[in-house]
Amino acid sequence: MITQGLEGVIVAQTALSRVDGARGVLIYRGYDIRDLARAVSFEEVAHLFWYGALPTRAQLDALKKQLAQQRTLPDAALNVLRALPPTTAPIDALRTLVSALDAGRPLTPPDLPQAIALTAQTPVLLAAFDRARRGLAPLTPRPDLDHAANYLYLLSGEIPTTAQVRALDTYLVLLADHGLNASTFAARVVASTGSDLYSCAAAALGALKGPLHGGAPSRVLDMIEAIGAEENAETWMRGALARKERLMGFGHRMYKTTDPRAEILRGLARDVCAPAFFALAQRVEETGLRLLHEQRPAERLYTNVEFYSAAVLHAAGLPKDLFTATFAVSRMSGWTAHVLEQVNHNRIIRPDAEYVGPAAQSVIPLDQRA
Amino acid sequence: MITQGLEGVIVAQTALSRVDGARGVLIYRGYDIRDLARAVSFEEVAHLFWYGALPTRAQLDALKKQLAQQRTLPDAALNVLRALPPTTAPIDALRTLVSALDAGRPLTPPDLPQAIALTAQTPVLLAAFDRARRGLAPLTPRPDLDHAANYLYLLSGEIPTTAQVRALDTYLVLLADHGLNASTFAARVVASTGSDLYSCAAAALGALKGPLHGGAPSRVLDMIEAIGAEENAETWMRGALARKERLMGFGHRMYKTTDPRAEILRGLARDVCAPAFFALAQRVEETGLRLLHEQRPAERLYTNVEFYSAAVLHAAGLPKDLFTATFAVSRMSGWTAHVLEQVNHNRIIRPDAEYVGPAAQSVIPLDQRA
Repeated sequence: MITQGLEGVIVAQTALSRVDGARGVLIYRGYDIRDLARAVSFEEVAHLFWYGALPTRAQLDALKKQLAQQRTLPDAALNVLRALPPTTAPIDALRTLVSALDAGRPLTPPDLPQAIALTAQTPVLLAAFDRARRGLAPLTPRPDLDHAANYLYLLSGEIPTTAQVRALDTYLVLLADHGLNASTFAARVVASTGSDLYSCAAAALGALKGPLHGGAPSRVLDMIEAIGAEENAETWMRGALARKERLMGFGHRMYKTTDPRAEILRGLARDVCAPAFFALAQRVEETGLRLLHEQRPAERLYTNVEFYSAAVLHAAGLPKDLFTATFAVSRMSGWTAHVLEQVNHNRIIRPDAEYVGPAAQSVIPLDQRA
Repeated sequence: MITQGLEGVIVAQTALSRVDGARGVLIYRGYDIRDLARAVSFEEVAHLFWYGALPTRAQLDALKKQLAQQRTLPDAALNVLRALPPTTAPIDALRTLVSALDAGRPLTPPDLPQAIALTAQTPVLLAAFDRARRGLAPLTPRPDLDHAANYLYLLSGEIPTTAQVRALDTYLVLLADHGLNASTFAARVVASTGSDLYSCAAAALGALKGPLHGGAPSRVLDMIEAIGAEENAETWMRGALARKERLMGFGHRMYKTTDPRAEILRGLARDVCAPAFFALAQRVEETGLRLLHEQRPAERLYTNVEFYSAAVLHAAGLPKDLFTATFAVSRMSGWTAHVLEQVNHNRIIRPDAEYVGPAAQSVIPLDQRA
């Protein structure tokens, strides 16, 4: 039997997260994502993954201090950054820069200090690249700013508003882990060979780039912007469906009901987006769901996490082409925690294939081949 | 049930290669590796993977011409190359440079011209990096030289001997594909998200680096060199076993009998290595097998592909720290062919995990946590 997408095949135990797609529940180490999104910051989630528990105030302060100390980039990464052409997609730049962070290091097993440093450096690399492509020098990270706020500051040079920080920080909490999705699994496959953390993260970034995984949120915004006004939604979307185009932001293999992250992001978007934009997004969502249901009445599709991610990241002040890479700013915490789990209890991941090629044949010498 | 290493789980159909570990047989598209190693060049194997058949003379000439035309490196890669510190491990440099090759390209599905170009560029990148770290400018690729010979030329600036070319070319044939090994599988996981070929190859390179996969052949040579003389083999190896150190170059999860590649490489090493070195290697092999059998009589371990890979690459004139990256020079052909197979018949690869974390818990506000 071939299980091509590995659906239902259990390849690991994890204490990090549980996706219950039938009930629409996402859990990080026992905590419901709905409770976490209301009450904790990204740094608290990272602490939860890395240390197994939500931090006390003192532990949180210590972790924030450690993250802030690791925001300085090594020269090799800065040099590679300057070598990348400004037309490089941010996710490609980030994959290359994370790979370059490993330059000159001896091969050591992934460890927690590396996980913390790499998570701290991810937004710094991205912001430095974004400024470099605009011809601007990188800004100095601000140790007084938390992960989300510092990232926004390093991009714009301005202290972000409370609403912007709340939008981005909640997004970072929501996207931090999601079971053995393709990027996390790619990281674990690489880790299983005894490779280093940077190789694992570069693999994960390559997987996240794919439009079937993390590469699509900006396309939701493209769609909303192309529709432009509430009254255009139905005509535009019917047209797209008639041309067999895919409507972006609907459906997820894991969820047979509402994705809890989509619900939380919708509520957040209502608070942080411009009212006219939110009304338009909501009209697009509602129209999309109605038309998809009309087209395939037997199936029930739901709004996925990408739909309101786009709106929320937009409200946080991020340019569209940073959306996929910003997903990585969050997921780096989950990837690194999964890699640490994998190396702690490792077996090389090497599946089988069914051979469907030619039967035995003899090699004909080159000059006799027809 | 958890199948942690995915052993026996069939995740794909492939027409590329079949590993029959029980009988010690490796097949590329119906051809026995023993026949191929005797009769065809690396370029013929690459043609077999990419086009489904061994080439005619005209097809082979056309492919060689295409490979030669693709040996020029884009500026972005050259700039990144110059930015990498000379202490960078060649496999890390290659992963970073392959990732950088994607800079500025729009996201398009992996295709055959990209597969050919990336395979052509891999040894060029490596040789350019090797020269850069020695403070030397890259050499201009020679269109009159084949893949193996051009790689050796770009490293040394000298036309390699027939024996060196034969050693490397046969090695490249033998290592070109091997079912769903961890690096190939990592590439397919990344491809399954709709990502690009460079992301897939960078992931594969990260996996290949691991000592449980491609990162160990140089350690075989370290061991042989440390033993130094035939009469030291037994004492040295008994000492290593007594200190619970692993003897390098023995055992492979897939093979319950001799790995056919190890047999071919042993014969090749006999022809191309200095006689004293070959005699020493053979004594180390024989002693290792005897001591391992003595220690674990119930198990039977065999010489693996890494053992004589080290001897053969050494005879080809390659420095030890290029061995793992040279494995990639060969396997790039298989990786790219697997990626093309994956995208042709795709489903996102997303396995399940068993959640073993805490049961449901409520979030305690930060300042009340103990």
